[in-house]
Amino acid sequence: MADTKIFLSESEMPQAWYNINPDLPAPLMPPLNPATNEPLGPEALAPLFPMALIMQEVSMEPWIEIPDDIMRIYKLWRPSPLHRAFALEEELGTPARIYYKNESVSPAGSHKPNTAVAQAYYNKQEGVNRITTETGAGQWGSALSLAGALFDIEIRVYMVRISYDQKPYRRLLMQTWGGECIPSPSDLTNAGRTILANDPDSPGSLGIAISEAVEEAAGREDTKYSLGSVLNHVLLHQTVTGLELKKQLAIAGEKPDMMIGCVGGGSNFAGFCFPFVKDKLDGQDIQIIATEPTACPTLTRAPYRYDFGDNAQMTPLLKMHTLGHSFVPPPIHAGGLRYHGDAPLVSLLVSQKVIEAHAFHQNEVFEAAITWARSEGHLPAPETAHAIRAAIDEALKCKETGEEKCIVIAYSGHGHFDLASYDAYLSGNLIDYPLPQEMIDEAMKSVPEVPEQ
Amino acid sequence: MADTKIFLSESEMPQAWYNINPDLPAPLMPPLNPATNEPLGPEALAPLFPMALIMQEVSMEPWIEIPDDIMRIYKLWRPSPLHRAFALEEELGTPARIYYKNESVSPAGSHKPNTAVAQAYYNKQEGVNRITTETGAGQWGSALSLAGALFDIEIRVYMVRISYDQKPYRRLLMQTWGGECIPSPSDLTNAGRTILANDPDSPGSLGIAISEAVEEAAGREDTKYSLGSVLNHVLLHQTVTGLELKKQLAIAGEKPDMMIGCVGGGSNFAGFCFPFVKDKLDGQDIQIIATEPTACPTLTRAPYRYDFGDNAQMTPLLKMHTLGHSFVPPPIHAGGLRYHGDAPLVSLLVSQKVIEAHAFHQNEVFEAAITWARSEGHLPAPETAHAIRAAIDEALKCKETGEEKCIVIAYSGHGHFDLASYDAYLSGNLIDYPLPQEMIDEAMKSVPEVPEQ
Repeated sequence: MADTKIFLSESEMPQAWYNINPDLPAPLMPPLNPATNEPLGPEALAPLFPMALIMQEVSMEPWIEIPDDIMRIYKLWRPSPLHRAFALEEELGTPARIYYKNESVSPAGSHKPNTAVAQAYYNKQEGVNRITTETGAGQWGSALSLAGALFDIEIRVYMVRISYDQKPYRRLLMQTWGGECIPSPSDLTNAGRTILANDPDSPGSLGIAISEAVEEAAGREDTKYSLGSVLNHVLLHQTVTGLELKKQLAIAGEKPDMMIGCVGGGSNFAGFCFPFVKDKLDGQDIQIIATEPTACPTLTRAPYRYDFGDNAQMTPLLKMHTLGHSFVPPPIHAGGLRYHGDAPLVSLLVSQKVIEAHAFHQNEVFEAAITWARSEGHLPAPETAHAIRAAIDEALKCKETGEEKCIVIAYSGHGHFDLASYDAYLSGNLIDYPLPQEMIDEAMKSVPEVPEQ
Repeated sequence: MADTKIFLSESEMPQAWYNINPDLPAPLMPPLNPATNEPLGPEALAPLFPMALIMQEVSMEPWIEIPDDIMRIYKLWRPSPLHRAFALEEELGTPARIYYKNESVSPAGSHKPNTAVAQAYYNKQEGVNRITTETGAGQWGSALSLAGALFDIEIRVYMVRISYDQKPYRRLLMQTWGGECIPSPSDLTNAGRTILANDPDSPGSLGIAISEAVEEAAGREDTKYSLGSVLNHVLLHQTVTGLELKKQLAIAGEKPDMMIGCVGGGSNFAGFCFPFVKDKLDGQDIQIIATEPTACPTLTRAPYRYDFGDNAQMTPLLKMHTLGHSFVPPPIHAGGLRYHGDAPLVSLLVSQKVIEAHAFHQNEVFEAAITWARSEGHLPAPETAHAIRAAIDEALKCKETGEEKCIVIAYSGHGHFDLASYDAYLSGNLIDYPLPQEMIDEAMKSVPEVPEQ
């Protein structure tokens, strides 16, 4: 019998990240200055990011070497295992072969530290000892707090107040790693004070938290800002997962027929599949499937347009699938999939039909999560369970057709801090949100008109 | 540079558990019938356990083969990695080489599934479709619920009411795996009803929960009982960890100078070190150190006596280090280390001075946990952090003496469900409990007088 898990040795770890930019089937549209609609030069980002990351953001080099100090920290948990989901296959009675690349083994429990550690390193290299960021449910804030502890960088996380109050465990995780966690809106920034003046009980939003983190970093010499998804350099760092996966599948003697991941901003999905996109463009028959919630259907129902990355219109304009930066998704439990847009790189590949997308309701997603937990044992994050839902559906189709497809899942994180959402599902209190077209139309009014580039 | 992690391939996994019984330096005293003070025959346990487990309990075979169906499930997460704690070594500036065997990678987050899966298997083999057990903080209840899901066995867990109310996450974990979780005392058993009649608001205790689980299993034809530590067969199943570790250390070219684990009932510690005890008895110089809380100092301050395994005096008498079965430890956060006794096998080896023991206060333990989390990244369980505290102390001694000792830690579990206790530490609200001798003397009055065997 084949192995249930395929490990790489540390010497087999990729030594460089893969930059998809030179291999794209169409040019990536540049970020625009919203005041002029002109492409934004790298120097415009210098107040927020260290120069090394800005250069990665625009690099056309196909490979970017991973520095030794980052490799050293990756090895605290990497290379991550590739599992064959024999138990799930048996449970489903499918002839499909199902694999999953397990990023839940990181200290923060998800793929997020792959870029958090890299970003902390490059900041430290340029003398930065203080970083601000925002977090919704807390996955990113905890990953950056971990990276801050490892590189001795002070981390301040603006956490959406309603999550701060409702999800104390992730806040405590940040604090355990020494991160400072501020409920947003706060009275520490103009953006926060403005909101509080209008609504002292504001529950906050990711848009407000971004504004606070960016405002503070822009206004302080000693402080930079860090983002956990969407941008090119973030996706670049995540390719360590797909590159490991490629070697592991080769060891297993497999070529993937289907690769399935979930997309919020798109970084875990990109890291997982980008090294295979080139194979597909070169003619290999791989179906690459992005999954998302029906409650926030950016890839399945939103147009490909220039829009702001945040609700408060503080960011450059990015060409992406967007529901409109004023879009506020229903309160689904997959907090990491509630972003109004998507990474420009992922959006481009969806618009080019290299990647396809499917949306799921949360009850069917949690049903899949339970099937998984009771066969494979491990408890997936609600975000990850979207990919599991799609994989189970495809495996059941194989059962009907008899096809022995090789299906690979991006297992982006565990659900240890999401048990309240499992409780809601098991007790029948989980609500599905079919999204009325009028709600999208209304939010799309916030998208600025930009002349064809 | 040496690897940070040493993985075994699945083909290198041990094919049999190691039974220390034939290698003991002194005979293990048998369990006694409390009514007669006579040794208890295997048949007396038949209402509670399947015969295969009872036979393992008394076996003198040095190796017991691991059935294929258990191996198949072990491979969902095993072999578990051995890590070199380079980052901690650097943080401490020690010449010691520190390793940790990482059992936190199991779906339930600890070593507990190693025996839960085995026990579920042997029950299923003998046609048992329903098992009761008790749980304090929830580690064991969740591991057995997982095993129940994998072998399609109904699991009912009596959970100490105060934990049931205060630790909803572990209860939800059990339910996610399909386990039924009943707050104890309950009105489902005579034991529970008696307590509730006297005190309708009883917070419960492990002793009461054991009584309820045992009473139900003893009274129902279709139901057996399962215990998560203390008994010989439980420790036997855990040796899979120490056997893997032995191969991994050989790959690293190491022989351990010190092996350090934490002891509640003793099962994770035994599994970790028993395969090395024989080496020590054969003359190898290994220091084997059990750690425990000063608030429940069974190995460091309690005598080696026959006593009941539970507060309600329903179990046989076991020869062990015991603080007295009426002992109620202070409410420390390492819930898994609050048992009044210890496994008879571990107790024997401590009494024979093969194993030494050290006790720690919880503030120094959490200080070590934070040092660990901020260097190694991973967040240890409070129980595990006792072993980390001892290892850091020993590594700092090496820094003074210049000794390059090889120190191996039993990393028994993660602390993802224990963040409230980290919060208590970080906010300065954690209380240390030096235990007055009078409290031990008082509890020791509950230990029965048994004639010398």
